Formats: sequence, structure tokens, C-alpha cells
Amino acid sequence: MDDAKWMREALAEARQAASLGEVPVGAVVVCAERIVGRGHNRREIDGDPVGHAEIVAIRQAAEAAGNWRLTGCSLYVTLEPCAMCAGALVNSRVERLVFGTRDPKAGYCGSLGNLVQDSRLNHRLEVTEGVLSEECSEVIQRFFSRLRRG
Amino acid sequence: MDDAKWMREALAEARQAASLGEVPVGAVVVCAERIVGRGHNRREIDGDPVGHAEIVAIRQAAEAAGNWRLTGCSLYVTLEPCAMCAGALVNSRVERLVFGTRDPKAGYCGSLGNLVQDSRLNHRLEVTEGVLSEECSEVIQRFFSRLRRG
Repeated sequence: MDDAKWMREALAEARQAASLGEVPVGAVVVCAERIVGRGHNRREIDGDPVGHAEIVAIRQAAEAAGNWRLTGCSLYVTLEPCAMCAGALVNSRVERLVFGTRDPKAGYCGSLGNLVQDSRLNHRLEVTEGVLSEECSEVIQRFFSRLRRG
Repeated sequence: MDDAKWMREALAEARQAASLGEVPVGAVVVCAERIVGRGHNRREIDGDPVGHAEIVAIRQAAEAAGNWRLTGCSLYVTLEPCAMCAGALVNSRVERLVFGTRDPKAGYCGSLGNLVQDSRLNHRLEVTEGVLSEECSEVIQRFFSRLRRG
């Protein structure tokens, strides 16, 4: 499994967000062993409420494919997706979600609920969690402890 | 209440989607009695899996405001939002959601669940449903019956 390899790419994206002063979450979309979309959280810098890492990566992948259906693709993200991003993963028909660490406050892929495996919706994802979980949670913890220290 | 007035604007957006061959859903964001964002479903034409009416309208409103927080704004949409759009409404801090008709298959603001009023999340919306519900469901039904007839 190359899960750790792709998660390291998502972590690189998360660090880019941190360097912009954004909550450090990063994501990549992988299709046929190739990165077809990458993204990091850009909510503040773009003033875009939907500018989460997952949405940026999904839109980039769809644009590259010329198709909103990301059939056969996997999304790697450092933090458990929120409801918006979980819904976007279902809507874009991503096959597999791999995330690093849980988000107990807003995560909707296991924590507050599980929108990516709702049998009533017309698509469900395979889910793997805990890949490079320490690095993924550390990058966020470090950001917030730096923020608190001013 | 100007709810019907704003819903008619959302319906005009929905009809624009229909004329493009898209599932006809339309939305407007209203702030201080003024439309600050409008959108219609553009998923096929843009090849964008997040190109739902609500996301397009929310992004336009945020861009106009130069801020991802749409505090004090209302979103009017012809169809009950899906999980992705419900999550986007929470993330963008929209104050009030008004929708026309329910979506029993994918709606997540009352049908399959209610993400916009989840007390565990850091924001909740006021919800009004059923405004111009007949017109809102008719525009969709007409689209699909025309599709079936080829």
C-alpha cells in the first residue's frame, strides 16, 4: 500500500496552509497511482467558505479530468472531512477516502456521523483512517499552540 | 415577509439551469434586502462536482463581501440542500435557510437528516420550508418528464 506515500503529499499541502496562516489541512486526489489534484485550506486567504483542502483538490481533479465524476479515485486528507467535504466526496463519486486523524468537533466521516457511508445515498466510499495519524495531528496541534502563544 | 419574492428569484435561476440541460435548482443569497449572490446548478456544463446552485451563490456572496462569513445573510433555494450544501451553509455562517420543496433522496435539511441544525456544530441556521413549493417541485418534475420523453 502506498497510503503513507500519498499521505506525505497531503501533509506537504497542510504545511503550505500553515505557512499562509491557515488551519493546516492538506489533501491530494490520486488516480491510477498519480496525483490528479492537490489542495490545502485557503479559507482566510481566499475569503472562500468552501475553500477547504478537499474541495480545492476535488475541483482540480475534476477540471483535469473534464468530468465531475472522479470514479476510481482516492482522496487522501490529513484531517477527517467535515459535512461539506464528506458530501462533496459522495457527490464526486470518489471511490476511497483515506484520512490521517479524527476531528471530534466537526468530522462527519466517523466522529459526529458518517456521511460517506450512508446507505440511503447513491454512492458510498471505502474509508481508511489513521494513516500517519501522529504527523497529521501534530501539524494541527503545533499550529494552534503557536497561535495561542501569539 | 419577502420570502416569496426572493424564492421567485431562485426559481428564475432554476429555469436558467433547465435551459442549459442541468437539473433545475436555483439559489440566491440575500443580505439586508439585497441579492448578494446568485447561482444555478452547473455541474454538467462546468464539469464541477461542487457546482450546485447553493455553492455557486455562496461563493459569489463571499467574494462580493470579501469575507467567508456570511453573517446575517439568508439563502433561498428551490430544493432542499444535500449534505455538501448543508455543510457549506454551516461553514459560511449563513443565518437562515429558506427552501421550496423537499428532496427525499438526498436532502439533508430535514429529509435524511438535518445538518443545518446539528447542536454539536459551531453554527446552526433558522429554517423555513415550503415557500412556493408547488412551483419549485414543478420545475424539477417538468425537467425529468421531458428527459424521459427524450
